[in-house]
Amino acid sequence: MNKMLMKQFSLLLLLQLTCYFSSGRCGNVLAWPVEYSHWINMKAILEELVTRGHEVTVLISSASIFIDPSKPSAIKFEIYPASVTKEEYENFFMHFFGEWTYLEKNSFWTYFPAMIRIIRKYFEISLKFCKDLVSNKKLMTKLQESRFDVILADAVGPGGELLAEILNIPLVHSLRFYPGYAMEKHGGKLPFPLSYVPIIMSELSDHMTFMERVKNMIHALYFDFWFQTFNEKKWNQFYSEALGRPTTLFETMGKADMWLIRNYWDFDFPRPLLPNFEFIGGFHCKPAKPLPKVLWRYNGKKPDTLGPNTRLYKWIPQNDLLGHPKTKAFITHGGTNGIYEAIYHGVPMVGIPLFADQPDNIAHMTAKGAAVRLDLKTMSRTDLVNAVKQVINNPFYKENVMWLSTIQHDQPVKPLDRAVFWIEFVMRHKGAKHLRPAAHDLTWYQYHSLDVIGFLLACVATAAFALTRGCLFCCRKLANAGKKAKRE
Amino acid sequence: MNKMLMKQFSLLLLLQLTCYFSSGRCGNVLAWPVEYSHWINMKAILEELVTRGHEVTVLISSASIFIDPSKPSAIKFEIYPASVTKEEYENFFMHFFGEWTYLEKNSFWTYFPAMIRIIRKYFEISLKFCKDLVSNKKLMTKLQESRFDVILADAVGPGGELLAEILNIPLVHSLRFYPGYAMEKHGGKLPFPLSYVPIIMSELSDHMTFMERVKNMIHALYFDFWFQTFNEKKWNQFYSEALGRPTTLFETMGKADMWLIRNYWDFDFPRPLLPNFEFIGGFHCKPAKPLPKVLWRYNGKKPDTLGPNTRLYKWIPQNDLLGHPKTKAFITHGGTNGIYEAIYHGVPMVGIPLFADQPDNIAHMTAKGAAVRLDLKTMSRTDLVNAVKQVINNPFYKENVMWLSTIQHDQPVKPLDRAVFWIEFVMRHKGAKHLRPAAHDLTWYQYHSLDVIGFLLACVATAAFALTRGCLFCCRKLANAGKKAKRE
Repeated sequence: MNKMLMKQFSLLLLLQLTCYFSSGRCGNVLAWPVEYSHWINMKAILEELVTRGHEVTVLISSASIFIDPSKPSAIKFEIYPASVTKEEYENFFMHFFGEWTYLEKNSFWTYFPAMIRIIRKYFEISLKFCKDLVSNKKLMTKLQESRFDVILADAVGPGGELLAEILNIPLVHSLRFYPGYAMEKHGGKLPFPLSYVPIIMSELSDHMTFMERVKNMIHALYFDFWFQTFNEKKWNQFYSEALGRPTTLFETMGKADMWLIRNYWDFDFPRPLLPNFEFIGGFHCKPAKPLPKVLWRYNGKKPDTLGPNTRLYKWIPQNDLLGHPKTKAFITHGGTNGIYEAIYHGVPMVGIPLFADQPDNIAHMTAKGAAVRLDLKTMSRTDLVNAVKQVINNPFYKENVMWLSTIQHDQPVKPLDRAVFWIEFVMRHKGAKHLRPAAHDLTWYQYHSLDVIGFLLACVATAAFALTRGCLFCCRKLANAGKKAKRE
Repeated sequence: MNKMLMKQFSLLLLLQLTCYFSSGRCGNVLAWPVEYSHWINMKAILEELVTRGHEVTVLISSASIFIDPSKPSAIKFEIYPASVTKEEYENFFMHFFGEWTYLEKNSFWTYFPAMIRIIRKYFEISLKFCKDLVSNKKLMTKLQESRFDVILADAVGPGGELLAEILNIPLVHSLRFYPGYAMEKHGGKLPFPLSYVPIIMSELSDHMTFMERVKNMIHALYFDFWFQTFNEKKWNQFYSEALGRPTTLFETMGKADMWLIRNYWDFDFPRPLLPNFEFIGGFHCKPAKPLPKVLWRYNGKKPDTLGPNTRLYKWIPQNDLLGHPKTKAFITHGGTNGIYEAIYHGVPMVGIPLFADQPDNIAHMTAKGAAVRLDLKTMSRTDLVNAVKQVINNPFYKENVMWLSTIQHDQPVKPLDRAVFWIEFVMRHKGAKHLRPAAHDLTWYQYHSLDVIGFLLACVATAAFALTRGCLFCCRKLANAGKKAKRE
């Protein structure tokens, strides 16, 4: 027992020392996560923060599915009771994934309204969790007393920004994408020049034909004016009540000191960014560990139809498998995590996207020549075989994905280190307001200079009017003088 | 002699090893500099490149004033004969500085046209140098044969981008500012949302009142439509002839792989940027070396009017002096180099701007609370004394400049290392096209989506017209049927 305590103590000392040397002092981080792959992502940052000696507390509801607080970890968990049961939440997600995957994607005009209905439910259930949290006075007092230095929040699950305001602490957002583009545009004030920035879910690239640019514009107009995925009014009302002043969800989101965007220029197309947007895509990837032998020895019962060269496993270490030198291709549903692992290890892809950003992700990879895309609903066995053969045998795909891999690896600072640096910066200096654009302090018409343009047009009109009247007056005067002279 | 050779050889070996470990292989850099403070700036990057084992050749004309190839240095110089003599060039600059400094700044409408006349002369003389270079077939062949890996060009002295095209090698631009904003906007495709991005030389901050936003818009309109500082036609014609295809100066500039902007968020206000724009302001600053004793012992003849606490020197190591713990304030003309040294060492400023970007620089420093501004033409002795007292005794200025200093020092990678990293990246991979936005491939109306907006408006108009016609047709049909029924 004593030995164990000594070991723990020396580990703690080591961590404290690491922290002391890396950033000056150890911080106290509160995390506001989102389930499934989002958690895998955020955990990579949190574990790195722990390694550097910071204390990390993850705030989850009693209905949490994928985030398992019972696993041994240096991360602490704070669980609040939710009005939704774990079964209800899990059922919700099963429906959510299933419905979205089998939505008919053929028509823009039917796909997006159907998608809205699905996503609205997610935001409704999210609102319940937020209300459960904020109304829990005992927990809120405990959180107040814990004196956190920063909140790291997954922006696609609103709530983190409200917590940051209530607890009066700095906020760092982590975001892959938001359906539409409202969070980045209205929350972060990121500019979207539609002529070369394809809107998420449009499945377009940065080089668009005229009709593709029309499509992109229609997407943007649709998202700007009709795409109310979550009932904004409900959220705005809740945030206003919770903060005791009229506010909106996006205004509260915009207070973030830093946005960590889970994307980079290997995956995304070059586009305008802001000083408080850090593109950290691929941060969760690591060099592959050798695959455990047992993995290759597994010989459970196979379906009879499977060929002798196909293996089935309950779980495989995807990153290590993609990093294995014999891995030639990756058949993927197109989730960001998997695509980034393929980019990191330079493995060409066959993409069979299911839902959410996956079709768009695969569109990016095909545009960059690193993947072949198949349609889950229409593809045949031969299509799959041909696609796999194509990415393996045609050097075009390997060369392109190797270039993306080079872009990912050849950066001045690794994405994970950049993410941690800015979280630590925000803790050290209680924010990073010097990176936040003044655009946040403008109304929408001021932002677009509409008042200034209106004023200048009014000035020009007044000047033109005055000039015309003046000329007419002079002409009349002259004409009258002429008449008078004639008469005299 | 042998010892000397051995020393040189081991130094060379050390450099080669440094290079080998830092970036894989040593590169061959061609530099296209600009005179005076611009050269001080670029030299800091070039010296770092040499330290890392790269070969650096600086291309200068025989009329070069400030760039002294005779000083012992590891940097090589390639001097081409110019049609302008050194005396003519020096005289030109003396007039240039003098005229601009004493321009009447009171009125926008007289200041800028006068400024244009002055700057046009600079671009005319620059065009002469470019023509001298390109028409020098022998030198051009030599440059071709030297197989450079990259050109580092100061963008405010056009020519580097033409050379990069002719020699078919990647290009990295270095730029502090261009009078107007055409280079960054049209050459680099940097977005300028006028509601919170103050245009250079407007002396505005990012938080503007309505009338200041009007002023900013007028500046932008002026620079967009009337501000032809250099005869663009002449340059476009020359570039088209030299490259044997119709092109423009800005199109050629836009081929740059990377733009190193000599600014950062301690000095500038947060604004949209692009992935191929790296803000490296302050890169030339270094920790202060102890001041040489002789400096303090100097006692040449002083004018009788000078107080006993004022010292006169022919030259002082400004960076070391600003970094001296006893330095309390910095009276500066507001050049970027000096301001950055003051930021780096945390010294509050009294700014007496003369010309170029200097009034704008001081406006930035006063907006950030790190400086007091005086007007050279109107200030009295008391004004100066009071200003110096103010920045020394009021802790507001020291606190603010110390925060700017913190921003400068607390970055994931030092600015100089970032600059060198991207130059090396461009050399390693023969470019960095993955960071260059697709905006470069669009016409101005495509960039602003004017064709798409026009098309969509036409669609709406056609639909409205068809609908109205359809309704009218139906109404008439119904009315006719009614009449017919009545008659029957």
